[in-house]
Amino acid sequence: MKVFQAERLQRIGEMIFKASGVPAADAELVTEELVEASLMGFDSHGIIRFIQYAEDVLDKKIKPGAEIHITKETENSAVVHCGMNFGIIAGLEMIKIALSKASSHNISAVVSTHCYHVGRLGAYVQKIADQGMFALAVTNSSRHGHWVAPWGGMQGRLATNPLAYAFPGKTFPVVFDMSTSAISEGKIRLLMHQGQKLPPHCVLDAAGKPTEDPNEFYGPPKGTILPFGGEYGYKGFGLGLLVELLGSTLAGVPVAPDGENDDYVNGFFILVINPDAFGGTEQFRVLSGDLADYITSAASAAGSDGVLMPGTRDFRTREDRTQNGIPVADDTWHGIRTIAQRVGVNMKELD
Amino acid sequence: MKVFQAERLQRIGEMIFKASGVPAADAELVTEELVEASLMGFDSHGIIRFIQYAEDVLDKKIKPGAEIHITKETENSAVVHCGMNFGIIAGLEMIKIALSKASSHNISAVVSTHCYHVGRLGAYVQKIADQGMFALAVTNSSRHGHWVAPWGGMQGRLATNPLAYAFPGKTFPVVFDMSTSAISEGKIRLLMHQGQKLPPHCVLDAAGKPTEDPNEFYGPPKGTILPFGGEYGYKGFGLGLLVELLGSTLAGVPVAPDGENDDYVNGFFILVINPDAFGGTEQFRVLSGDLADYITSAASAAGSDGVLMPGTRDFRTREDRTQNGIPVADDTWHGIRTIAQRVGVNMKELD
Repeated sequence: MKVFQAERLQRIGEMIFKASGVPAADAELVTEELVEASLMGFDSHGIIRFIQYAEDVLDKKIKPGAEIHITKETENSAVVHCGMNFGIIAGLEMIKIALSKASSHNISAVVSTHCYHVGRLGAYVQKIADQGMFALAVTNSSRHGHWVAPWGGMQGRLATNPLAYAFPGKTFPVVFDMSTSAISEGKIRLLMHQGQKLPPHCVLDAAGKPTEDPNEFYGPPKGTILPFGGEYGYKGFGLGLLVELLGSTLAGVPVAPDGENDDYVNGFFILVINPDAFGGTEQFRVLSGDLADYITSAASAAGSDGVLMPGTRDFRTREDRTQNGIPVADDTWHGIRTIAQRVGVNMKELD
Repeated sequence: MKVFQAERLQRIGEMIFKASGVPAADAELVTEELVEASLMGFDSHGIIRFIQYAEDVLDKKIKPGAEIHITKETENSAVVHCGMNFGIIAGLEMIKIALSKASSHNISAVVSTHCYHVGRLGAYVQKIADQGMFALAVTNSSRHGHWVAPWGGMQGRLATNPLAYAFPGKTFPVVFDMSTSAISEGKIRLLMHQGQKLPPHCVLDAAGKPTEDPNEFYGPPKGTILPFGGEYGYKGFGLGLLVELLGSTLAGVPVAPDGENDDYVNGFFILVINPDAFGGTEQFRVLSGDLADYITSAASAAGSDGVLMPGTRDFRTREDRTQNGIPVADDTWHGIRTIAQRVGVNMKELD
């Protein structure tokens, strides 16, 4: 475990992406978002992605500098072809479009096609809440990511399909970001490596029977992840289906046979509501704060350390890591050094 | 247990409401929606509400015939003052507004103030899916309904805050309707009357400790209901908070001290997306159907009787009950007879 200041990780990420052939401005933006995710404690969506993203640039899965353009548009909607450029670059462009349309036309929705991994979903809605508006975003994945069984099923039909929303808060914006599956594949892998059991109601084996053994999940043959909700997993299934519908079906992206639409890596959908059209922006900010006060005034349950609004813990982590640095696991640091060397970064500059 | 044909219950409901002083056209509409809920198997939101609604008319909590009017409006949004008329009358009016605005302006959102209980949330989104569009709806409740603790808390801060969406399907529309709490108060009461234990992760006692004893929930002092999600209840909490925000905060309705805004019984929010602005209405219908085929093609898990799209089971119940009648519990029938007599319905007409 090493600890790095954010500025240093920013410099390293930019070097790696630029050396991979990414335009300088985009290398800076992508790195900023990944460092920001690490600062907030979302390590799985943070600087560990330097490695995968740079590899995917080399493998031409990401097309740096590719044109991002609107293929269909109204005054309050857009379908955006992301050209398999970085999902982060596309996502940032899409929220600009959505914000601009909601500013002039109250409610807007923007959806992607040909969009690479957008990273931490909460980051996008948070930027909109910072402008005093409400935002809801979802991302689904094409079939290669369909690890999650529908309720009652034993074959993967959905991805972990996260859903996020944000609105202005009292101290920090309120940012909620959840996956609609019971567990992530990354968490299953981690527990397997640690020799631990899985929590109940998370996974089925290849025969469709519940299991708490991570090895039975990987098989082969492979098992499936259950939708979120335990015995009420039909709720998680319904939410995952909502994400699939908004992320792909609405934009006209079909569920194609395996491999056929693998370049639609993520479907990204964002909805923005301008409170000006309803109770008014200033009133929305005041009432959101009052709501937060009311919610967090609830006395703590036994064993709890208090009630927090969604996102508060992450903003506190951000303050801590800005001051004290970002912890980076040895494996991650090794992977970053390896990809840096591969793309020809001067290794002296890394140390 | 008695069994009634829908037509007969429709006649009975209309008689009761008209005798309570409800305009004939509204009595017909409200009864239609309640009978429809019973036909689809949602007994808790069906004809059992003849009793409560008629009582609330007598108690002047519902104001039959009250004006429902728009207090703020743009081309794609509206805030609707529902005058404490029937929530069903208000809700039907609001979806008309939302549909009309989405037809001409792609995406619309309509939110209520002063709205009585809207009944089954799924009914509204279903009507919009029938027009080939996508709809999402939520309802929150004012403080008297705040039985649900925020994650980590032991005092009620939210209601059971349901969330529903619908889109066109292959045979039936896909209609998903979930509460964001672990259990409903009605279910707790039922299990107490049956002398049964509660499922785990559903309820805290007044000291903030988990309990499976329904008596400990009622106290006094009273306990709280947990948000949906078991050990991951922060997800259910976040979803419940989303419902509160859209249902009340957005419209400018504050979380007021107890009793102060009790006449804001439900906050109803509806979002409509016209697929014409995205992949196109016809393509949306085709791809939605393909998605349903793909989802339901998953092999059944052990112990499951197959994968169904959300709502399919309810439409099957509707077919069955249309043919074979609606079962009505003796208690419910007794309550309906009692209120009918109270409002002066000729009792011979009931039998």
